[in-house]
Amino acid sequence: MTPSGTLGIAVAGVGRIGRMHARIIAEQISEARLVGVYDISPDVSRDVASNLGVDAAASIDELLASPDVDALAICTATSTHSELIIRAAAAGKAVFCEKPVSLSLGEVDEAIAAVDAAGVPFMVGFNRRFDPGHAAVRRAVHTGEIGEVTIARITSRDPSPPPIEYVRVSGGIWVDMLIHDFDMANFIVGSPVVQVWAQGGALFDAGIREAGDFDTAVAVLTHESGAITTIDASRMAVYGYDQRVEALGTKGMALSDNKRVNNAQVYREDASQLAPLQYFFLERYADSYRIEWQAFADYVLGGGPSPVSGAEGRAPIVLAMAAALSAKEARPVRLEEIG
Amino acid sequence: MTPSGTLGIAVAGVGRIGRMHARIIAEQISEARLVGVYDISPDVSRDVASNLGVDAAASIDELLASPDVDALAICTATSTHSELIIRAAAAGKAVFCEKPVSLSLGEVDEAIAAVDAAGVPFMVGFNRRFDPGHAAVRRAVHTGEIGEVTIARITSRDPSPPPIEYVRVSGGIWVDMLIHDFDMANFIVGSPVVQVWAQGGALFDAGIREAGDFDTAVAVLTHESGAITTIDASRMAVYGYDQRVEALGTKGMALSDNKRVNNAQVYREDASQLAPLQYFFLERYADSYRIEWQAFADYVLGGGPSPVSGAEGRAPIVLAMAAALSAKEARPVRLEEIG
Amino acid sequence: MTPSGTLGIAVAGVGRIGRMHARIIAEQISEARLVGVYDISPDVSRDVASNLGVDAAASIDELLASPDVDALAICTATSTHSELIIRAAAAGKAVFCEKPVSLSLGEVDEAIAAVDAAGVPFMVGFNRRFDPGHAAVRRAVHTGEIGEVTIARITSRDPSPPPIEYVRVSGGIWVDMLIHDFDMANFIVGSPVVQVWAQGGALFDAGIREAGDFDTAVAVLTHESGAITTIDASRMAVYGYDQRVEALGTKGMALSDNKRVNNAQVYREDASQLAPLQYFFLERYADSYRIEWQAFADYVLGGGPSPVSGAEGRAPIVLAMAAALSAKEARPVRLEEIG
Amino acid sequence: MTPSGTLGIAVAGVGRIGRMHARIIAEQISEARLVGVYDISPDVSRDVASNLGVDAAASIDELLASPDVDALAICTATSTHSELIIRAAAAGKAVFCEKPVSLSLGEVDEAIAAVDAAGVPFMVGFNRRFDPGHAAVRRAVHTGEIGEVTIARITSRDPSPPPIEYVRVSGGIWVDMLIHDFDMANFIVGSPVVQVWAQGGALFDAGIREAGDFDTAVAVLTHESGAITTIDASRMAVYGYDQRVEALGTKGMALSDNKRVNNAQVYREDASQLAPLQYFFLERYADSYRIEWQAFADYVLGGGPSPVSGAEGRAPIVLAMAAALSAKEARPVRLEEIG
Repeated sequence: MTPSGTLGIAVAGVGRIGRMHARIIAEQISEARLVGVYDISPDVSRDVASNLGVDAAASIDELLASPDVDALAICTATSTHSELIIRAAAAGKAVFCEKPVSLSLGEVDEAIAAVDAAGVPFMVGFNRRFDPGHAAVRRAVHTGEIGEVTIARITSRDPSPPPIEYVRVSGGIWVDMLIHDFDMANFIVGSPVVQVWAQGGALFDAGIREAGDFDTAVAVLTHESGAITTIDASRMAVYGYDQRVEALGTKGMALSDNKRVNNAQVYREDASQLAPLQYFFLERYADSYRIEWQAFADYVLGGGPSPVSGAEGRAPIVLAMAAALSAKEARPVRLEEIG
Repeated sequence: MTPSGTLGIAVAGVGRIGRMHARIIAEQISEARLVGVYDISPDVSRDVASNLGVDAAASIDELLASPDVDALAICTATSTHSELIIRAAAAGKAVFCEKPVSLSLGEVDEAIAAVDAAGVPFMVGFNRRFDPGHAAVRRAVHTGEIGEVTIARITSRDPSPPPIEYVRVSGGIWVDMLIHDFDMANFIVGSPVVQVWAQGGALFDAGIREAGDFDTAVAVLTHESGAITTIDASRMAVYGYDQRVEALGTKGMALSDNKRVNNAQVYREDASQLAPLQYFFLERYADSYRIEWQAFADYVLGGGPSPVSGAEGRAPIVLAMAAALSAKEARPVRLEEIG
Repeated sequence: MTPSGTLGIAVAGVGRIGRMHARIIAEQISEARLVGVYDISPDVSRDVASNLGVDAAASIDELLASPDVDALAICTATSTHSELIIRAAAAGKAVFCEKPVSLSLGEVDEAIAAVDAAGVPFMVGFNRRFDPGHAAVRRAVHTGEIGEVTIARITSRDPSPPPIEYVRVSGGIWVDMLIHDFDMANFIVGSPVVQVWAQGGALFDAGIREAGDFDTAVAVLTHESGAITTIDASRMAVYGYDQRVEALGTKGMALSDNKRVNNAQVYREDASQLAPLQYFFLERYADSYRIEWQAFADYVLGGGPSPVSGAEGRAPIVLAMAAALSAKEARPVRLEEIG
Repeated sequence: MTPSGTLGIAVAGVGRIGRMHARIIAEQISEARLVGVYDISPDVSRDVASNLGVDAAASIDELLASPDVDALAICTATSTHSELIIRAAAAGKAVFCEKPVSLSLGEVDEAIAAVDAAGVPFMVGFNRRFDPGHAAVRRAVHTGEIGEVTIARITSRDPSPPPIEYVRVSGGIWVDMLIHDFDMANFIVGSPVVQVWAQGGALFDAGIREAGDFDTAVAVLTHESGAITTIDASRMAVYGYDQRVEALGTKGMALSDNKRVNNAQVYREDASQLAPLQYFFLERYADSYRIEWQAFADYVLGGGPSPVSGAEGRAPIVLAMAAALSAKEARPVRLEEIG
């Protein structure tokens, strides 16, 4: 806890991702201070609170009632997001919400309407936008350095499949996993998507197949500008978390390559070896999470447009729905079909 | 000309690609010797013949009648391929044919039938199979080193568009450019394609748009095994010839990266620069062409299966047709629709 | 400040490097807590204390008298190090001392004797040992993976020269800058150095030349095993902080390459650009500082040998003296000449 | 053999390196033609001649008497070089001589005087100057792109030691192996060397130790400009032929990195592997040999200064002698001591 932090932030939901956010707020953002945590499990709540030197709230209402809480970070289960956004906005709190805002577009729209009506700052947690490498690709596009984008290419592969219990409630690979990539396509290309072609397969994980989901997925997005984005995603890349982004333009190409655990190389008679890729998102995207919170603090304290607005948070949900429909019906889906 | 070369090869059609083949045969393949060239333009024919120290034949018939000619390399216009294959086979010559064999499947089948009936060796010039990097990717797949392939990814971008006169007679981007990538998908994944989704755009070249062709193209191939290949292609990558191939499998990933003109790097205050990519196919794939001719010589002299058989040469033509249909009708096309 | 931190650490001297250490202790080491800071400048002291939520001590005696202080981190001017080590040891505190322990070998020996007599934990701040890439090179050597080392190679270049006022009191390039590289040679090769050849030049900085120092330096170390280490160092690499380490052995080679600010690449017609190197030590070695403090906490709390012992902290000082003598007299210097 | 080659070149000495030169002349240099070979072994001579379609001369006199021979490539044993240069010059032939010209400076000077007196073109075979990567480093220096050079760094490691019989007559590691690196230092830095510090060790090869030679060697060269070059060399790098060149200047840095057999990478759970380095000089420097012969042909046919003059061929011999003396006497050696 840094006493100089003027922005008091409470975190609702301190499972794996919420706990990480709470620690970053407590330790790495000098303008912010962590002022409380809540979790549906009192044990989890007490443990995190004790570790980070703050109070464990008995309820979210308690957090919302506290004058110390300037902003609420919503890291609870997806199904609770929209209601919490609405309650926090009604309490006049700035709101940070983990992605996705909701799996129901109606709820998304209600939540956005609520923060708009309350006039409170609102930001959606698409952290990959804040990765320095990916952000450099966007910069190369948006400054015109590589001209008009014609093709974007996103590779997104997890090191290993999540527990099947998680898969069953995840909403499916399109909304659970590719939602990040759909957001990345919007972020990089900067032209709205008008059509989605998507197809998936359950090629190696029998549990995922039985759950009716895919372990392998490909999507082709057509942007209004004519640019085409290809996405390939897998629930399993045994060599580590593979996260690459690339844009081809009329004046050049920009790419963001993978990160390794270190820059050592060992050359032996039979092979030259590189260090492995960073294992998963907590390591690979550590920088992005810190920069994301810095952006939130700057936004709430300094004003200006949201770093990731409600509309920007909504767009990839629509894309995920279109992708699911395309994969199901084996036909391209126009975005206007979804809403 | 190396006197020790026992396999006499004549080249029909010595424009840019045929001239290159003739020079490789004459200078780099110790088992082969160049024994004659022919071109529809007598000036071109004489020039190449004089440069390489062989005779310029007055006609293809003259080449086919010569006992010095053991094999004919067909590098003439695509429309003449199938007829020349049939004539060469009838003359008992081994046949190397540049891709594509024909734009008509009927002609392709007639040509294959002719070489089969004559029992002469036959190989189609898909040179990229012989690139050491791409071949290493295939090896990683076919030895099982990376397990079962789930996703393959091919990037194929020319440095700049060809003359519009060429585009108009090229047969379109699918058969002219992606045919190599369709063959690469078959080569790498090793499971036949059952469905194609393809879409293109004329995003930066008005001449190509007016000619009804695409300058930008994406294809998604579904293999019988369930594996999915994505291909992205562009007629223009201003940074040079971009040729990348990648396969993700259940036990690992293999990729073949671009080649640069040299391995120098210059670091200055503002940027660290790498040498540019090798400019185009004559440089980038120089190794592959040499290895291709070595494979042809070994095959004709030593027997065994064709390095690129008629069936393997036919398959990407079918894919190109399926892709063209998919792009036209904006729907996935099953291969059995094509034939 | 994490309440769970059981090891109370105070920092004496909170200029650039001490302030960084204090922040790491306060925020990133869960077993430790920052319990006080002191600086010769009361303003600096108060500023850091306020930022990190601790008290600014009025004197080092106050820190040493406090029961909350389990360990003292000495980050003051080099000339004060040995005396502070002795006082802290007398007070029964564990001691972390920034490098170099002293520019006088007599003082170094007195300080080491004091901590030995008091039986307090003692560690010298050679942070580069904790860099994950450099540590991987050492691991490749010490596990035998690359056999017996025959050649080590260290490149060490600062982005730009320090202020000339700093150069004048720095002790010269050998002790100010190469001391890290001398330690790295010992760390990687693992065999004591028996001879030093060193030569320097003032090639681009007139102020450094007038101050009688070098801006460019090369050293060749001969190890007892016969292995040879070459070091090249420069006060100026306009492209960024260049830190590379390499070991050639009889069974292979290991190297630790530079780190860039991100993994983006931009390819344009004229050049393919990489992101710049990380600018200087605060960025490049951020991981190493954190891991260094973790190692200190583990050592003090868990026992075992010091991660960087007094003897290990002394060795590179001897090498710097030998290098200075070699460069002055233009002859190889045996280590036994120095002491 | 290309009939259009106007420059007739004969090769004297067609062991491994001479045979390679003969093949390049015969096949890859359109302005040149191979017009004869000679070897002290008639069998070797006949074999190469038959392979390349030329006559095997019965003596070097026969080659020198032939009007078809415009230039003589001297690839015989080093001890015969100077006499052959003198005889070829007397016969009015252009001369290409493999490095080193001689192990005796007196003979070197006589040979240079002879070609000067005869006014015939003369070039020494320091092929690494023609490597595209190394040449790019020189270009970055000589265009001023990276400012004034302060440090150069050369790594030169063979994959495995030569037969001990070869080592015994090789003249020692300084003249046999580092002569290339001494030339590279001159080539890159462009300022004459004034002092050498050298030291070696026989660390892993007992046969080399018994022969009184080194298997490991380091040299530090001081240039007139003040720039310092470090060279590290080994008779054994089990991971392949390691050839790196680097120059640090006041405005930047340029390096030439190793080349691999292909650009494939295979990522598996335990490691990400790169393809091995190109094995040895015939593969690694294949481009350089071709470009070298092109430069020779352009020089003889087109005039201008020699691509590698007699003085440039002499300089690294002096450096090798200085290095041997420095290593023997364990002191820096000024070049004027050698002559």
